[in-house]
Amino acid sequence: MSYASKLLYTYPRTFNVDARVLTATVDDLKDCAQACTADADDDLSEPDVAELVMCIRLCLDCADICTTTVGVTSRQTEYDANVTRPLLQVCMATCKSAGDECERHAMMHEHCRVCAEACRHCERACQEVLNAIM
Amino acid sequence: MSYASKLLYTYPRTFNVDARVLTATVDDLKDCAQACTADADDDLSEPDVAELVMCIRLCLDCADICTTTVGVTSRQTEYDANVTRPLLQVCMATCKSAGDECERHAMMHEHCRVCAEACRHCERACQEVLNAIM
Amino acid sequence: MSYASKLLYTYPRTFNVDARVLTATVDDLKDCAQACTADADDDLSEPDVAELVMCIRLCLDCADICTTTVGVTSRQTEYDANVTRPLLQVCMATCKSAGDECERHAMMHEHCRVCAEACRHCERACQEVLNAIM
Amino acid sequence: MSYASKLLYTYPRTFNVDARVLTATVDDLKDCAQACTADADDDLSEPDVAELVMCIRLCLDCADICTTTVGVTSRQTEYDANVTRPLLQVCMATCKSAGDECERHAMMHEHCRVCAEACRHCERACQEVLNAIM
Repeated sequence: MSYASKLLYTYPRTFNVDARVLTATVDDLKDCAQACTADADDDLSEPDVAELVMCIRLCLDCADICTTTVGVTSRQTEYDANVTRPLLQVCMATCKSAGDECERHAMMHEHCRVCAEACRHCERACQEVLNAIM
Repeated sequence: MSYASKLLYTYPRTFNVDARVLTATVDDLKDCAQACTADADDDLSEPDVAELVMCIRLCLDCADICTTTVGVTSRQTEYDANVTRPLLQVCMATCKSAGDECERHAMMHEHCRVCAEACRHCERACQEVLNAIM
Repeated sequence: MSYASKLLYTYPRTFNVDARVLTATVDDLKDCAQACTADADDDLSEPDVAELVMCIRLCLDCADICTTTVGVTSRQTEYDANVTRPLLQVCMATCKSAGDECERHAMMHEHCRVCAEACRHCERACQEVLNAIM
Repeated sequence: MSYASKLLYTYPRTFNVDARVLTATVDDLKDCAQACTADADDDLSEPDVAELVMCIRLCLDCADICTTTVGVTSRQTEYDANVTRPLLQVCMATCKSAGDECERHAMMHEHCRVCAEACRHCERACQEVLNAIM
């Protein structure tokens, strides 16, 4: 069991969403943030870096937004739906943008293929939490 | 002139929004992020910390979201309206939530009054960029 | 295999440290950052929050520093030992401070016990990377 | 007066360092973080981006580390010298690395010249806080 799970199960108050769904999403968000940071760096190491500028930029955005979403969704105390919901939607948007662009380079660069997979995965996970909190 | 201004004026490509509006907003976002971090910490130092739990939580969210918005709006290359627009809206929502809660404690705690001011200011600044990029 | 592993194995250039050690550490850093964010929030939900102020503060520091260390260690391109080494040492210091304080509350609060474990784990992982890059 | 100043002057407990020194440094750290984010993005927009890979990487590190240092130094409650001191030293190291590399491109790119200035400024500010807390 991941620390995210363990900590959600020891939370002292009642929960706002299904703990299993939330836990899985927090783990996917962390993975996607790191994958995007690593992929942007991989792109910088490629001889054709000039072709990968859009990929780098979108991955930097996606990494920042996923990291922030880990923070906000890890906080259960005084949960604020007015912020959490639209933030999950932004997170889906950035995962879609980064995922689409990574996919365009997936044939040329294995790291972009892996990163696209992490983005798609995270996008679906955010949708699942959104469904659970609606 | 702030470094944010200087760097926007030396950007090598054409711009997506009015540079003055964007620059002012980036500065307001930075200030709000730091104000919320400091106010959450001030709350932790108060004898009535138990009354300030919601204020701390909302300030932590606001600090994270503003910091991420500084990053995304500071990147002009391959600008992605599908991410920037809804992110600015989330930023307004978190500034409103944190600002409202800080205002409730403004009479008791001067640091909450100052932080509410920073949140209101930042909320308006995000609206101005949103108007400028629509 | 985690995305962190997959992305390290697809890195286009030669590596600065043993990929397995680095990968494991990146995963531990992500887990510790999230555990500290969640534990600070759990503390805020406790009726004895006033007793947990130091724990909250040290966990907030630890979360921020671990997140930054995920970023820096995930970047392999133009690796800078002058920054990475002392950063890993700061990371060990913050894990020790947060872990010690969490441990003091471990008997009373299960979430602090879990977070202490995450901090100890991460501290050891940073030491292993430090040994590998020396 | 900046919000950083106002919030430091409304802090409910006694202070660990000279408030004026700390306030100035927090503002410099925020500026440097944003300058490095913007400069990395400016580099991505340049036709000779392949020559600027090291500059981008070091600026990404510097932005992350300065942002984290804003957080840690903005928290006065239960101040932990074991973390703050070495973190300020890492911050100086990353400002030096990024500043040196930016300076190498200062003749070719005005944005690198501005960013080098922000890095030098921030490095000195960290040294001043270090002197004040020793």
